[in-house]
Amino acid sequence: MMIGEKIKKLLINEETSLVKPAEQVAVVGIKNRLNHALLLLTTDKYAVVPVLDDHSKMCGLISMPTIMQTIMDIEDVHFEKLGEIEVGEVMDRNYPYVFENYELEDVLNRLVHHAFITVIDDEGFFKGIITRSEILKGTNRIAHEFERKYEVKEKEAITH
Amino acid sequence: MMIGEKIKKLLINEETSLVKPAEQVAVVGIKNRLNHALLLLTTDKYAVVPVLDDHSKMCGLISMPTIMQTIMDIEDVHFEKLGEIEVGEVMDRNYPYVFENYELEDVLNRLVHHAFITVIDDEGFFKGIITRSEILKGTNRIAHEFERKYEVKEKEAITH
Repeated sequence: MMIGEKIKKLLINEETSLVKPAEQVAVVGIKNRLNHALLLLTTDKYAVVPVLDDHSKMCGLISMPTIMQTIMDIEDVHFEKLGEIEVGEVMDRNYPYVFENYELEDVLNRLVHHAFITVIDDEGFFKGIITRSEILKGTNRIAHEFERKYEVKEKEAITH
Repeated sequence: MMIGEKIKKLLINEETSLVKPAEQVAVVGIKNRLNHALLLLTTDKYAVVPVLDDHSKMCGLISMPTIMQTIMDIEDVHFEKLGEIEVGEVMDRNYPYVFENYELEDVLNRLVHHAFITVIDDEGFFKGIITRSEILKGTNRIAHEFERKYEVKEKEAITH
């Protein structure tokens, strides 16, 4: 289903991009050990970060809960394992993404379930992320400005 | 600034509440030790959880990065400290909140910067949370349904 053109215009601030570009996003390498990823996740504000291979291709996501689950069993937490296991062994390969020429509806749908979605190009190279926060800014604009800018009238044909 | 009435109607699904009620939210007690909080954060899908006192009053937020920062120094991670430190000693007391009779604009503004905001009553008792995900559902409804339901015309008085 299409997104209304006038709503879209306010949802996306046309002067800036929705996408936070790759060079501004904290990422880990697929061959990094879990202790490195844990350190990054401790200093980064996100709870989940993208995992890239040596060529900056998108491979998956790694989160702090995943790391902790990996080193825990029923009896104990085995912190000594952090230096032994590679990120690629435990990352989530099932990550939400769109291509660079994405449709806004795909972004909105995926963001209901994910804190951010990754943007990749045709060859799988990581280009950046789109966060819920950016869309919330657009929601704010719509909420405050739409009915100030536009006259809005119920369509007569629709009677439910 | 007021929120447009017709936008508001679609943003809030009137049949359900925006608020995820307290009994469905994972929380920790202020006197719990950090190892307990870490365990909860490992199994819960949120990276941050509310901290309550013995009477279910809202006290702060605790996150996995905060816990890790607490037990790390420049040289090492001191996991043995997890069983010694209480959540209340390190939690973030500066949490975003609204009261039960909140204005939607306050919710929208705070959610640009926070993954969820807490809802408390006049006496500070924890009533639940409002998440970005709920607002994203509303944004989706607006994006897909608004211009289908309403006739929208640019206001003539506004000429910028």
